[in-house]
Formats: sequence, structure tokens, C-alpha cells
Amino acid sequence: MLPDDVIYLDGNSLGPLPKATKTRVLEVLEREWGHSLIRSWTDHGWIDLQFRVGEKIGRLIGAPAGTTVVADSTSVNLFKLLAAALHMRPGRAVILTEEGNFPTDLYVAQGLTALLQRGHVLRQTADVMSKLDDTVAVLMLTHANYRSGAMHDMAALTRAAHAAGALVLWDLSHSAGAVPLRLDADGVDFAVGCGYKYLNGGPGAPAFLFVAKHLQDDLRLPLTGWLGHAAPFAFESSYRPAAGVARAVVGTPPILSLAALETGVDIALEAPIAAVRAKSLRLAELFIALTEQEGGFRLLTPRQPAARGSQVAFAHPDGYAIMQAMIERGVIGDFRAPDVLRFGLAPLYVRYVDVWDAVAVVRDVMRGEAWRDARYQQRRSVT
Amino acid sequence: MLPDDVIYLDGNSLGPLPKATKTRVLEVLEREWGHSLIRSWTDHGWIDLQFRVGEKIGRLIGAPAGTTVVADSTSVNLFKLLAAALHMRPGRAVILTEEGNFPTDLYVAQGLTALLQRGHVLRQTADVMSKLDDTVAVLMLTHANYRSGAMHDMAALTRAAHAAGALVLWDLSHSAGAVPLRLDADGVDFAVGCGYKYLNGGPGAPAFLFVAKHLQDDLRLPLTGWLGHAAPFAFESSYRPAAGVARAVVGTPPILSLAALETGVDIALEAPIAAVRAKSLRLAELFIALTEQEGGFRLLTPRQPAARGSQVAFAHPDGYAIMQAMIERGVIGDFRAPDVLRFGLAPLYVRYVDVWDAVAVVRDVMRGEAWRDARYQQRRSVT
Repeated sequence: MLPDDVIYLDGNSLGPLPKATKTRVLEVLEREWGHSLIRSWTDHGWIDLQFRVGEKIGRLIGAPAGTTVVADSTSVNLFKLLAAALHMRPGRAVILTEEGNFPTDLYVAQGLTALLQRGHVLRQTADVMSKLDDTVAVLMLTHANYRSGAMHDMAALTRAAHAAGALVLWDLSHSAGAVPLRLDADGVDFAVGCGYKYLNGGPGAPAFLFVAKHLQDDLRLPLTGWLGHAAPFAFESSYRPAAGVARAVVGTPPILSLAALETGVDIALEAPIAAVRAKSLRLAELFIALTEQEGGFRLLTPRQPAARGSQVAFAHPDGYAIMQAMIERGVIGDFRAPDVLRFGLAPLYVRYVDVWDAVAVVRDVMRGEAWRDARYQQRRSVT
Repeated sequence: MLPDDVIYLDGNSLGPLPKATKTRVLEVLEREWGHSLIRSWTDHGWIDLQFRVGEKIGRLIGAPAGTTVVADSTSVNLFKLLAAALHMRPGRAVILTEEGNFPTDLYVAQGLTALLQRGHVLRQTADVMSKLDDTVAVLMLTHANYRSGAMHDMAALTRAAHAAGALVLWDLSHSAGAVPLRLDADGVDFAVGCGYKYLNGGPGAPAFLFVAKHLQDDLRLPLTGWLGHAAPFAFESSYRPAAGVARAVVGTPPILSLAALETGVDIALEAPIAAVRAKSLRLAELFIALTEQEGGFRLLTPRQPAARGSQVAFAHPDGYAIMQAMIERGVIGDFRAPDVLRFGLAPLYVRYVDVWDAVAVVRDVMRGEAWRDARYQQRRSVT
């Protein structure tokens, strides 16, 4: 339901509203919550919803049945799985990650190590491959970088981590729904991801997490809530984990937001991911070629297609003001300090003509020096 | 928006849909998410929403400005504040709680102590007052019990905990919006609570948490996500907590569910809590007196008004089947194993005539022995 006067290149931050979502949310409001009330937990399947949507996301990320659930936020899920990973590697102190990973991933790891007080450290490095040794408990990486759009080789890094005896935890926030993923085939141990970017699940949509089948029996999680209990409605006084990945859910999930997420995921499942990826790469080629004609923009995203996710990022010293001028002209990307312009080329709804028209606006803003206008210079926080 | 054919006595589990919520959620869907897209984080105040709704809930629970935020689920918030409390009482090993506390509170404490591996224990006792000694780090209680509806004396227990040098953490899930609360006046340290019961925030609505002002500077939380950072959009590589209680938010909140919660809270704020409480007690008196005329029901809820929340519970050996028969006749309460019938008398929408009519259905079910029907005997899980 994109507005007519907008070219939306920010689906890597917040995917747009699917038409079907309005219908679905109204149904949840009126028929389920309004009419069936508490009975909806059984009659409309609310009690299984986070598992059902998790299974669907599993199909998008190459995960087998019984490995993926929706729960909490990406940050909280990271905490849960990092703690579980450290517990599985008791002699190892290092959480290894890369410099420039998304901050919440770093903060969560820092918070966990401070809580545990057992000598764990978060190591940030520019070259994770060379730092994979027998001190590393878990390699924690974001698959597609939130700033540059650079994408890791998941299979190769997972293999390297395993060769060093480490577990691997992938953050799929910028790749789920946008690029082909084969978590099972690549031997991934753990993953988390976000529902509100390429899955179009709505602002702050619940997140998901994945745990490989062979790790589930030993999965000891720090957040043990009643919905992850083996028998939630027996109201026992001691925690017993549910079988499998179901133990990774904690409290009662936000049903309105979860229903909206399901609709977004259903749409993503209709599109063959190979076609989605092919279009994404073509959109990016076109966008890069046209924007570079304008001069002054330094491409941050790798030129090699296999090393890109579905966003293109440029650095420009006047990036903030340029982005504000573009947004006022209806081309919505976003800005990341100090100088990064990000453009999400979400292939489910961004068209080739949108790329063409967007770059025409770039040209207009740059040649007319519109961005010099004082009103574009004053910063305010954006997400 | 209660259905005409329903008497809803289950608002202690899931509050009903307010009329204004449908309007508000549609506005968030169409105008904010659909039209303004990513710009809504600033233009429609999404970025402050969990703080804004938190402030409003603070007014309902007698908490001053800057002490209450909405975040995550009740379970996750319990984890955060329990961990913070243990950190503030390093020489003390005991989390003290009562037998029969809501299971997720117990499970979360068990998960935290197992994670920390520092000798902490969760002690469940029938008489917390006698167990408050210098081994207790934190007294964790639910204000109004989820089964019996019995309500603790918050001021007295908080004083007793403090006299023993312990901190106190109250779970307000069954009291916020239903009974007068004076967290500040009573000297409460920490509290958590649920948005989907008497606050009518919708299924799985986000939860809230409270931290007393004087504890905030030393508040060290285990879940350190980007939205609790001092400067989330500076994208720094090290965590720095935001000032005050704002550090207790973690990841991006589910906006649809959060907007629905705000509408429920706004309605609760319109009703003077003293009048709400007075009606609640009169509803309960009437319900207890009429139901006891039927015989066979054993009252679990204290008869003394000051010792009750806003629900009435009876035990009956055939409780499950009786509740099913009542639900089929349009009187919706709920059942908790092994034999508890719970009735939430939410004063914002339950009328005296509803109590009268509900007990007429009780009488009909009991005298006609309708509950003996085979279809009411087969159990399925309910929430």
C-alpha cells in the first residue's frame, strides 16, 4: 500500500504495509479478540501462532520443520542463544564478532558477559577468519551488514567456525526474505532475525530464532518463561523445558503484531527466492551504475553480486542533507552517521522504474544543490 | 465491544476490545505505517511510544514520572529486574517468594539462578514474613494471586523486606488497572506487570516495568539492547546505558500492539480508581453471596475486602466441566487445574446485572446437572 508520491527504498529498515495485513489485523481485532475473546487462544490458534509463523519463516531461510520460532525481539533472542552457546562451550571464553556489526548485537553480548562474570569477552575484529581459534566459543555475525550491505559467505564462515570447534550464530535481520538462505545445508547452529524489514511484518514486529535440530536437546536457555515450559497450563512450580525449539519462547506473544507478521511472511513465501534474488541484483546494478554517473558518491557496498545483500550504500560527506532533500522529494532511503546513505532495494515491490526515477531525484538534488538548503542541515534522529 | 450474547468474566486473563482501539489500530496501520512509513518513528512518535505509554501506566500505579516504561513481556521484565536486584545485594543468595506464585515468575527466577551459577536460590514458602532475613536479596511477590484472587498488603510487606535489608519486586499483572496502587508511597523498589488483563491492551500486549527513582543510577541490567543505549542512533560499539529507567527497554517494540495498549490505558485513566475499586468490591460481594446460595462451591478468595483483588475464585471438584457448560451458555470465566473456577469482575465493564445473570446460569448448570454432559468432560488446554 505504498503512497503514490513515494519511492520507497527503506524496506531494509521498515517494510511497507501489505494490503492483506489490514484485512488480517481487522479480523484479529473484531472477530478474534472482539468476538471470541479469551476463546481465541484455542479457537483461533493464538496459542500456536508463534510456532506456526516460525515454521513459515523456517521455509524462507532453509530451515527444517521444528527449528524456528517467533519470539520477543532480535536483541532478546540474541541474548538467549548467546547464553546457550556459551553454556555448550564451557572451556572457551571468546564471543568473536566483526567490527561494524550492528550495535545491539555487540551490546547484548557485552551485557551477557558482564552478567555472567566468568571471564567471557566479546572480541571485535576486522578479520574474523584469522581469529578463529580454540578460545572462541561462538562466532556471532550479521549475515548482511546494516550499513554497507556487504554479505558474508555463510557456508564458508560456518565451516571455519566449526573447524575451530566454535559454534556459530547468524543475525539474519538484513537477509531473511531478501536473499536465499540455506541454514540447514550450511550447518548453521543458531540464528536470529527481524520481522519488520524484508519480511514486511510491521513496525517492531516480533523477531525469530533458529536452533539446529541436533543442538536442541542440550539447549539450556537463560530466559525460562511459562510458554516455553513443557506443560504451560499445568502450572507446575518448577521449570521443565518444552521439547525442541519450543522452549525458546518465553512470555505471551503480542498477537496483533504477530498476526501482521504472518501476513508479511505469507507474501514472501509466494515469491520464489531465486527470482527475488535475481531481481534484487539487477535493481542494485542499475542503481549503482546510475548513481555513480552523478559523481561524489563512494560506493560502500561490494561490487561483486555474491558479496551483496539487497541494499546499496554510498558514502557522501553531505549525506545527511542529501538524504533529507531526497526524502522531501519523495525518495525515501535512510542515513547512518557519519556519512552513509542507505537504499533498500526490496525486490518484492521496488520496480526498475523506481530505481530510474529515484536516481533522477538524486541528480536533481545534486545538480541543483538543493541539499544546501538550511532546513536539510539540522539533524534529528532517524531510525 | 462485548458480544451481546456474552457475559464476560475473564478480563483477569484477557481484557476485551475497547471501541477506540479499532479506530486507533486502523490509524496506525493506514496513516502511520502505510502512509508515513519509516518517517513515523519521528513524525508519529513511535520512538517515544514505549516511554509515553509507560508514563501513563505510571499514573495508574502511583509511580512518579520517569519510573515506568513499557517493554517486552512480563517474564522478560522479571528477568531484567531480578538480575538487577541480585546485583545490588551481592552478599545475599535468596530470592524469596511464596508458594503458589504465578509459574512464570518462578521459572524466570530458576532460569536466572541457573544462569548465574553463583549459589543463588529461589525459596518458595507459605509464609514469607517469617523467612525475611539477611540472606534474602529480593522478595518477589505477585500482588494479587492469579488463582485465588488474594491480594497482599504491599506497604507492609515492602516495609518488612526493607527492614530485613532486602529489595522488593512486585508483579502487578492482576492488580494494575483494577485496584489502587501507590508504588511510590509504599516505597516499592521494582515492579512488573501485564498489559492485557485489566489494562485491556489486547492479547499479548507488551508489559511494563517500574524502577524506583533512587535505584536507577545503580541499575545494571542484563539485557542491554540498542534502544536502551544512551545514544541509540550514534551506533557506538560499546554499550552505555541511557539515563534513568529508559535503559530498561531493549529492542524495537511491537508498535501495533503498543498502540492498542495505549488506548486501553487511556480508558483506564479516565476512571477514578477509588470508584473502580468500590464497584469491584460490590460486584464481588454480590457474586460471592449469590454463588454460595447454590452450594458445592468453596470460596478460595478471601472474604475480607482489603485482602482481595478484582477476581473471585471458587473450588469445585467438577470445576472444569462446570466452566465448560457455563462458557457454552455465554458466561465466560476460566478454569485453573485442578479445580479452580476463576471469575474476573472487571469494574470498567462488568455490570451488577451481569453478576445476577451469570449466577442464574450457574444455578441452571448446577440444578439441571448440565455439566454432566460428556462433551464438557474432555479437557483441552485453556489460558
